[in-house]
Amino acid sequence: MSILVIGTVAVDAIETPTQNRPQVLGGSATYIALAAKYFTTDIRLVAVIGGDFPDEYLQVLKDNDLDLQGLEVDPNGKTFFWAGRYHEDMNNRDTLDTQLNVLADFNPKVPAAYLDSEILCLGNLSPAVQLEVIKQIPNAKLKVLDTMNFWMTEPFIDGLKDVLKEIDVLIINDAEAKQLSGCSNLIKAAQVIREMGVPNLVIKKGEHGAYLFTDAGIFAAPALPLHEITDPTGAGDSFMGGFVGYLAQCNVIEYNDLKKALLYGTVMASFNVEDFGPEGTCNLSQEDIDNRMRTLVTLGEVEVELV
Amino acid sequence: MSILVIGTVAVDAIETPTQNRPQVLGGSATYIALAAKYFTTDIRLVAVIGGDFPDEYLQVLKDNDLDLQGLEVDPNGKTFFWAGRYHEDMNNRDTLDTQLNVLADFNPKVPAAYLDSEILCLGNLSPAVQLEVIKQIPNAKLKVLDTMNFWMTEPFIDGLKDVLKEIDVLIINDAEAKQLSGCSNLIKAAQVIREMGVPNLVIKKGEHGAYLFTDAGIFAAPALPLHEITDPTGAGDSFMGGFVGYLAQCNVIEYNDLKKALLYGTVMASFNVEDFGPEGTCNLSQEDIDNRMRTLVTLGEVEVELV
Repeated sequence: MSILVIGTVAVDAIETPTQNRPQVLGGSATYIALAAKYFTTDIRLVAVIGGDFPDEYLQVLKDNDLDLQGLEVDPNGKTFFWAGRYHEDMNNRDTLDTQLNVLADFNPKVPAAYLDSEILCLGNLSPAVQLEVIKQIPNAKLKVLDTMNFWMTEPFIDGLKDVLKEIDVLIINDAEAKQLSGCSNLIKAAQVIREMGVPNLVIKKGEHGAYLFTDAGIFAAPALPLHEITDPTGAGDSFMGGFVGYLAQCNVIEYNDLKKALLYGTVMASFNVEDFGPEGTCNLSQEDIDNRMRTLVTLGEVEVELV
Repeated sequence: MSILVIGTVAVDAIETPTQNRPQVLGGSATYIALAAKYFTTDIRLVAVIGGDFPDEYLQVLKDNDLDLQGLEVDPNGKTFFWAGRYHEDMNNRDTLDTQLNVLADFNPKVPAAYLDSEILCLGNLSPAVQLEVIKQIPNAKLKVLDTMNFWMTEPFIDGLKDVLKEIDVLIINDAEAKQLSGCSNLIKAAQVIREMGVPNLVIKKGEHGAYLFTDAGIFAAPALPLHEITDPTGAGDSFMGGFVGYLAQCNVIEYNDLKKALLYGTVMASFNVEDFGPEGTCNLSQEDIDNRMRTLVTLGEVEVELV
């Protein structure tokens, strides 16, 4: 199936305890698309960049055969910029700078050629923008949404709740699930969020794996056991890319497919954190992905005979 | 196989956000034995209590058919007492009071009838005492050790490292694993601890499940999804009870048995936290345990065909 990815294409500056990179290709749409492209060929981008966007980064997007008809360029604007610094344990980071720039007035126009997109992958953006895209493609077969804590406060929360009623899968992390639901217990939180109109909910827990909550049951997967984390930036977006990428291969999406999608999301996130920016998910082979998927499945394998 | 459990038998006082219980049966040996008894009948206790130990609590131990030959009573002493208060999220607690009492001079004498014990289950106690018991039963087939952060500091840490060289399985939580190894990455931490002479290492992560690290590989299991936690006291000990209890049913212990033991530990811990003190693991049926084991296995079940 074709995937329309809407999100940000950005320039980031990332500091970790061991490295300082003043300029890295970034943005949610970038990470999602670069992870999804291992699973399907028809990936369409809707995003906006400024005239300052480096040619070499544009070339990365082109080299990965992404459909860039929907990538708007504002020649007089500057590209969305984010700078962050990670702490020693990599689970905490400080945002040093956020410059919305061209993103401030982003009003996405979905190209006519994208209107038949089958999977709508809504990366983290304002709920108003996300809803606008959903309205333009009402017949998408699957709508998958990412969001963040910023949109769970006034004056955005009502808009977010409207978006939640329109989607098939919500992917958030554990802190966001607790904030959105007002519940400190994650299982209760999931129940409350699903009652907001979300049929399928994925809650990511970083190094502790991820949960999938559906009408058919709950699925829990561990994370890959990694010795080193180089840069967690974009891990959640790479997860989403692996998730929707795998689902694009399915004609009919059943419960087991959602489980497998969660595993492929986990696999792509694990590659992501092993290198800077999106570099960890560039230049992978099918064998790399298969091997890591095998490791992940083996990690939870046990033979139990129950009466 | 027969299990010798050495640990504490105590009186606790527990405060949670919703309840205040000034007197609850407690102690690591109590929790371990009451969870293990669903799996095997021959459970032998080595512990010490004071003359003040309530008759009704002694009756609980007797009613559960535990072998109490090794339960020393010091008629002039007072029983080990611990008081704690849990915070709103139940992951944090304050120790309000610890009175070692008869435990201060505990010098365990293993009864002659216990010298043929096949599984040695060493609950949290000073490494010196744990080593003393190991020396008295050098031919035990399986030695499983619990410990805590308190023994990972001077002047106890060298004694703990001596004990680690003598055992088959170490069961600790994630914070303890990080402290013992000096590594903030849990996978690295496991490697460092195993290099201390621990062939099989279980790391418990509470609501995030547990890891098993062995020569044969790594196994990861989720926790049971629980809506409510009533009292987490003794959850780690109940885990250990389920773990050793299941292994007591095995003639030869293979990798898959260690995995299943971890799952039964998870199941018993989940019952434990649903009620006060050890009450959650009293009065269970085999069906209760089977049903929860089925839920746990189902939670991680996925069909993946890999080339």
